[in-house]
Amino acid sequence: MDIIKVSSKSVSSKVAGSIANSFREGCKNVEIQTVGAGAVNQAIKAISIARGFVAPIGLNLVCTPAFYDVIIDGKEKTAIKLIVESE
Amino acid sequence: MDIIKVSSKSVSSKVAGSIANSFREGCKNVEIQTVGAGAVNQAIKAISIARGFVAPIGLNLVCTPAFYDVIIDGKEKTAIKLIVESE
Repeated sequence: MDIIKVSSKSVSSKVAGSIANSFREGCKNVEIQTVGAGAVNQAIKAISIARGFVAPIGLNLVCTPAFYDVIIDGKEKTAIKLIVESE
Repeated sequence: MDIIKVSSKSVSSKVAGSIANSFREGCKNVEIQTVGAGAVNQAIKAISIARGFVAPIGLNLVCTPAFYDVIIDGKEKTAIKLIVESE
């Protein structure tokens, strides 16, 4: 599984390209790790865009959101990861 | 299809309850409409929580993000909707 970290400053079209590339190279699923609302938003936009990139090769991307714990500056925080896979 | 509008001030556990209820009542999919990063974040958290609510009845919720146009104060804006369905 490929892991992509997305921040609120990530460019969603570039992240979309990375997601699409992973699937083109044969990955079965991609995990997108985000911390914060801005990052979740960029990740979701990226998945929407990536759907268009891989639809022509017969893939229908869906995502499964999940919580995970991450340690930032020594403090444990709850973040969101999005597992993207083809239906 | 049930439609749920989520804002950045929505309580994610309550939205999760609404999503779970729709599926328990036999809905095949639920559309969550959001405008803005905060709203997307609350919606994604709600889906994560709802997954736990309906997993015991054999449903595995996934979401498909998509863009849609919405008119706010007379201006057209691009917003995100999340189509939730059971795999």
